[in-house]
This record gives sequence, C-alpha cells and structure tokens, in this order.
Amino acid sequence: MATPLKIGIIGAGSAGFSLGLVKDVCLTENLAGSLISFMDVDGERLDMVHRLAARYADEVGADLRFETTQDRQDAIRDADFVINTAYIKGHYHARAMRDITAKYGYFYGGVSSGGAETYQFMLDVCADISRLSPKAWLIQTQNPVFGGTTLMTRETDVNVVGLCHGHYGVYEIANVLGLTDTEDITWQAPGLNHNIWLTHFYYKGEDAYPLLEKWIAEEGENYWRTHVAERTHDTQMSRGTIHQYRMFGLMPIGDTPRQGGWWWYHTDMETKRRWFGEPFGGPDTPTAREFYVKGNEERLAEIKRVAEDTKESVAQHFGTEKTREQHLMIIEGLVNNVEQYVRVNVPNNGALPGIPDNVAVEVPAIVNVKGIQPLRVPPLPEKIMYECILPEWLEMERSLLAFKTRDRSMLLYNVLQNHQTRSYDDACAALEEVLSTSGNEDANAFWQYPAELV
Amino acid sequence: MATPLKIGIIGAGSAGFSLGLVKDVCLTENLAGSLISFMDVDGERLDMVHRLAARYADEVGADLRFETTQDRQDAIRDADFVINTAYIKGHYHARAMRDITAKYGYFYGGVSSGGAETYQFMLDVCADISRLSPKAWLIQTQNPVFGGTTLMTRETDVNVVGLCHGHYGVYEIANVLGLTDTEDITWQAPGLNHNIWLTHFYYKGEDAYPLLEKWIAEEGENYWRTHVAERTHDTQMSRGTIHQYRMFGLMPIGDTPRQGGWWWYHTDMETKRRWFGEPFGGPDTPTAREFYVKGNEERLAEIKRVAEDTKESVAQHFGTEKTREQHLMIIEGLVNNVEQYVRVNVPNNGALPGIPDNVAVEVPAIVNVKGIQPLRVPPLPEKIMYECILPEWLEMERSLLAFKTRDRSMLLYNVLQNHQTRSYDDACAALEEVLSTSGNEDANAFWQYPAELV
Repeated sequence: MATPLKIGIIGAGSAGFSLGLVKDVCLTENLAGSLISFMDVDGERLDMVHRLAARYADEVGADLRFETTQDRQDAIRDADFVINTAYIKGHYHARAMRDITAKYGYFYGGVSSGGAETYQFMLDVCADISRLSPKAWLIQTQNPVFGGTTLMTRETDVNVVGLCHGHYGVYEIANVLGLTDTEDITWQAPGLNHNIWLTHFYYKGEDAYPLLEKWIAEEGENYWRTHVAERTHDTQMSRGTIHQYRMFGLMPIGDTPRQGGWWWYHTDMETKRRWFGEPFGGPDTPTAREFYVKGNEERLAEIKRVAEDTKESVAQHFGTEKTREQHLMIIEGLVNNVEQYVRVNVPNNGALPGIPDNVAVEVPAIVNVKGIQPLRVPPLPEKIMYECILPEWLEMERSLLAFKTRDRSMLLYNVLQNHQTRSYDDACAALEEVLSTSGNEDANAFWQYPAELV
Repeated sequence: MATPLKIGIIGAGSAGFSLGLVKDVCLTENLAGSLISFMDVDGERLDMVHRLAARYADEVGADLRFETTQDRQDAIRDADFVINTAYIKGHYHARAMRDITAKYGYFYGGVSSGGAETYQFMLDVCADISRLSPKAWLIQTQNPVFGGTTLMTRETDVNVVGLCHGHYGVYEIANVLGLTDTEDITWQAPGLNHNIWLTHFYYKGEDAYPLLEKWIAEEGENYWRTHVAERTHDTQMSRGTIHQYRMFGLMPIGDTPRQGGWWWYHTDMETKRRWFGEPFGGPDTPTAREFYVKGNEERLAEIKRVAEDTKESVAQHFGTEKTREQHLMIIEGLVNNVEQYVRVNVPNNGALPGIPDNVAVEVPAIVNVKGIQPLRVPPLPEKIMYECILPEWLEMERSLLAFKTRDRSMLLYNVLQNHQTRSYDDACAALEEVLSTSGNEDANAFWQYPAELV
C-alpha cells in the first residue's frame, strides 16, 4: 500500500496549472490517502479549486483529502512535496509597466523593476520548507525557473527541481511534419530553461532532421503564408523559429525562439507577425497578451461554473486523461519507484558540458526512489554555447548578483542593454518612471545606487 | 658579454611603433652585436626606418647590424625574437567601410568584414616561426591582442606574449590627481586586453582611491567642462571613464573605457563629446581619426626628414630616453636576466580567477631567464566579471569560432547585436554591401552561410 503524502500547492488558483494539477493528483492512484493543501492569496480562487478537486476526486473515486489555506506555512508544514506555481504581480501590473515604457519607444516591455520580489518569494518559500518540512521536495514551476532554481539550490539546502513544459514543443514539430504517433519519436533538447536545443530528433529510430529540411524546402513558405495560429504560443514552426534553426544550427524548442535574438525579431507588431505568424505574432505582443489573459479568465470562469454546477459531471467535462505535466511523474518516481524519464531543471554538476556546476540546466533525468538522476548529455555546438547559452547564463548571473547587492546601477545596465533604448538619458528616465509607479514602491526602496553617477 | 640576437620586426614601418622601437633597440646595450631585421611591405617606409636606425645607432654608439626585407620569412628565419606590429588593411580602408555603414545609421563602424585576414596573418606568422625559428618568442602588439594571443597559443606551439601600452593610463590618473612622481605609485590592473580594471592603486603606500573620490567631488565637473584634449586618446579622466567607474565599481584603464557599454556612450558625435570630452570625443570619431591619421603622417614625414637630413642629429632630435614600451624589457629579461615587472597578455592558466585557462589575460608578470611568469591576481569583482569581462570573453570566442568555421551567419549575428542596427533587413543589406566592397573580395569569398536563411 502506498504511503499517504502531504502535497502543498502554492498559487493553487493559477489559471495555467490548477485544473491540470487537480486532474493529475486525482488520477494518480498511488496518492491514495494523501492530503492536498491548496494555498493561494485569493480566497475565491481557493474555494473554486477546492470545490473542483473535491467533486473530481469524488467522481473518479480518488481517496484524497483536501484543505485550503491563505497561509503559505500551513501548506508547507510537514509537506512531502511543495509545488510552487505562484505568479507574484499579475498580468495587469505587467501591462501597466509596458504602457509606461512604450512612451520611451520600447515595444512591449524593455524596462524591468528588477524581479527582486520573485527571487525573495522563492527564498522565503525555501526558508519555510527548511523550518517546517526540511525533507520536502520543492517542485518549482514559477518563473524564472532558470534563475530561481539556481538561486534556491545555491542559497538553501532545500531539494529543488524546476519544471517547465516548453520541451513538448518537439511534438508540435512532429505534428506539423505529420509524425503523429509520439511513441515513435525519440529526442533530446538540453540547455537552460527557455533556451533548449534539439540535439537529437529520431522518428522510428532514424534521424528526423532530414524530414524537417524537406518540409522547410517544400512546405515552409506556404505554411508561413497561410498558417493562422489558434494559440498565442503556436510558434514552434514559425518562420522565426526556423530562422533561428538556420542561424544557430539546431531547432530551438518551446519558449526558446522567444529568447533568441530578442530584439531583432521583436521590435514591433509587424516584425513579430513576420517572424511568429498571424494573428498574434507570438506570445509576447499586446494582441497575444489580451487574448491570453482573456483565455485565462474564461478558463477560470469555466472551471468555476462547472465546479459549482452539481448537475454536471466535472470528470466528464474536463476528461479523465492525465496531462503531460511532470509534477506527478516526479512524485510517483521518488515515492513509489514508478521510474520515469523526465526533463528537469537541476544544478548542472557536469550534466551539460561547459556550464558551471552550480547553474541550473534543463536536462533529461531518470527519476525513481534513488532520486532525480540527471543524464549527462553531449556538449551543445560551440556556436549555440557562445551565441545563445552562455550569454543567457551571464544575464542570469547578473540578475542574481543584482538581487544580492540591491544595486540599482545593474538595473540601469539592463535598460541600457536593451536595443530599443534610444539614449542614456532615456534609459535613466524610463527606469526611474517604472520604479516610481504605483505597485513598485518596494522595488523602488530595494534598489539603491552604490555611488552617485556623474 | 651578451649573446648577439636576431630580432625580426614585422610591420617595421608602422607610424605608431617604429621610432620607439628603434630607440629602445639602440639604447639597449645588452643587444650588442645583434641583428635587427626590419620587415615591411612598404619599401619606402623600410628605407626610412633603416636610415633612421643606422644613424641613431651610429650616433649613440650602438653595436648593431640592420637589414631590411619585404619578405616576412627573411625577418623570421633564425630569429630569437619576432615583433609583430603589422596593421593589415590600413586606416583608409577602415574609413571607406565606415562611410558605407553610415548610410545604414551606424555611427563610425558597426559592420565588420570579419577580421579573418588578421587572424590568418597571425597564424601565418606563427607557421613561419615554427618552421624557421621554432624557439623564437613572438612579441605581439598587432591587434586584436586578446583574440590573437588566444588563437596563436591555442593553435600553435609558438611562444607568444601579447603587449599593449594601455595600462599606462594609470599614470594619467596620477598626473591629473597631481601625483607626479610615478615611483611613488603602485598599482594593479588585470583583466583582458583593452578591458582592464584598477584593482589596486596606492600612492606612497596608501590607497589612492580616496584621492580620486576627492577629485571627482571637488574638481570633476570643472575638469569635464573645461578640459580640452590635445591627444585623441586623452580620455582616462573623462566623464565617460568616471561614469564607468561609477557603473562598474573600479576604474577602467587605458582603452577600456572605449569598450565598456560601447553603444550608449558612442551613438553620435555629440554623445561622444559629452562622455569623452572636447574636441575629439575620444579616439573613435571622425574628428579624432582624421587628427590621428594626420598626426601619424606628420610623424612619418618628420622621421623621414630627420633621418635624411645628415646635418641634424637624430639622437638629439628624438632624444635618448627609452620609451615605456615593454618589448625590450621582455627581451632583456628573458635573455640577459634583467628581471622586470611587466604587464603581459598570456594564456591564463589560473592567473585571473573565473577565466578559462586557454584564454589570454592581461596580468602582471615577472620576466627573467626563467621565463615570463604571470602573477596570480585576486578575482575581479563579480559585477565587472558579469558585466564587462565575461561578455567580452564570449565575443572573442565567437570571433575565433567564426574564423574557424567561416560562418557568415556569425558575422550577421554581430551586426544584429549592434545597438544601432535598425532592422533585420538593414543588417543583412549592410553586411552584404560591406562584403561586396572593393578591397573585401577575400572576405566575401571567405565567409559562407552554412544554410540558406529563411
């Protein structure tokens, strides 16, 4: 008989993860007898997810207990696993920031208030775990997974594994190529989170890159001219992604094409559409964000409606297939020895050559009762290391160093690095305006110049 | 009695180095009986430097033999030292390139034809040395010293040491602060060539950074408002240099302020003057370049005139003080055990923490008959590593990888990285126009796209 667990879910009301997590939890028989502790600052969403989970569990016959709390420490106390999916400031705040920076000529962002709240939140969660459930595993999906996993594993003794679902982009490639049975596809895409590269891509045991080349030659132009995305993130086969394949030599997977050459693909809506397709131009546009936020709201409304409508079956409505998210794979592997092949973000320790040991890399791993065992992968091509991976490593290190030193000039450095910054004076003004905006009071106090600039 | 040597000087007619080298050679008594082989592709300049050297040696009573050759291998054959000061394409070609890129909105450059000729030239010199004088030391002052020293020490067995005089910028600081006796100043400024940082700065045994702080507070603004540079490179105490000291935490020395935050200090003439002073705005401006090239021409004309005017004493005209250049220090140290404390560019091998062993660093070294012995220096501050040093390391690695793979898309990547690039299409067009310009035929053939872009 399986050991009952306590799983604490931070940010349990998140639109992106809550439904899937509830389903996966309820559909995992090995969790029988376990306690799921939903934590969110939003009481209404908490009620929603609780109701959904209770009804879903009831319908599928899952032997689970649920509790809700707005106190993070309640969810963490004595937990075996803590899942952190929190999103600190919300999409509306991000939009307000973008409106400010637009005045200075930035398209959709460009000036960050530093992200100290998020890094601090991660350390606070770890501090709670160290005190209240020191043997727990923290499953981190809150972004930035790259910097956050690196930070937490450097600064605390908590067991942390970072998860992302971007790597499933490889199945979008397969789908467009007509390779519909995912069982026939084997692949590897190591790197840093949101910066992963398809080093191996096999279909029925044979290299499938030639199929991609054939598609580019014979169908690419037509696809790019006629394809209309239904999802904002439907960019895996866009012109911009293939262009990056051409520029860097391997296919960038999932969120990777959003990072590569940030500025030249992303200067304005027209350019974004050229590279990432109609109608959204990829996920990082006003059009896409509006659609995405609206979609989230509709999804939350749907969950709420169905959860409350006792005449409808929630299991029937949302289905009884597990998602492809890896949270429960990690748990079942570690606890129940259900061995799994997963993609995780963990301190490198030699798994990916050329990256320091104490930097989180995204690599394949075997997970079972012996632990999460990252596989050593071959080196990425030097070109990708020097043009894509190592520059982002430095950017991440700068973000951690800035957080540690509270150095406002490192924020200014970031603004100055932005290719849309028009001048030094503009950079200073934009940064000060962002930091003095309502909602950024803590950030404004946090970041200090070590010496007065001249 | 000292052992006679053969010293081959490649690019012996260079305006920047020839006079100083001739003086230093003639004023070094330990070279008695040695042969100096001047090599240059320009026969007229060769005659000039030969005449100058013969007369100078005669006047100061130096026991030296001189020969001239337009064949590099003659200069290298059986040499004990080879000094490479060659400049491959000349200032006029650089100006032509800049005129082209100006059309695309770049101020003063922005699109490189890749520098393959220079790297290839360095390897060719090394191949000659390996064959004709395998025990020789190559003293490399031809730029890029950073990438070149790294390349040659990785790819060949030749003994290479890279030299630069930028570190003497520390005496310009001292001079402006009124610390006139250089004997009282001790300092250290390690890093990468053209990217070095004043970690130690003592005057009469006491930390002199507080004197700098006092100057900034009490005299800085007045200096920046009123100082008029007489040399194009007179930027060590400019507002831009002090601004970088504020941004990064240590004083950048010599050519370093030209690198740091390239684009935001360097967008146009007005901005350059703001940061690097009147009238030139630092060395990388049309005004400065014109002045500099004119100065070089005048200097060459002066050398030529004096060398030919047998009624005038060349030694009296040019003085009998050695320069501060380190070429002869290296030679006397290695051959005659005249121990010297020098600043050299050599493969790191642990001298500067956080840089791979096979990357050339600029560090202090002791030179004597036992060899050139780099001193281990403390780590640079993390902020400087992540914001200044490591990004330039990556840039250098990209330049070497591009050279090795002949990958045109890496040149395009560089153009796209330029902050003044207005769009992707502009970047492509500017690159193609530069590569198809007269004088760049070899580069245009050298650089190939590995796959057609989409």
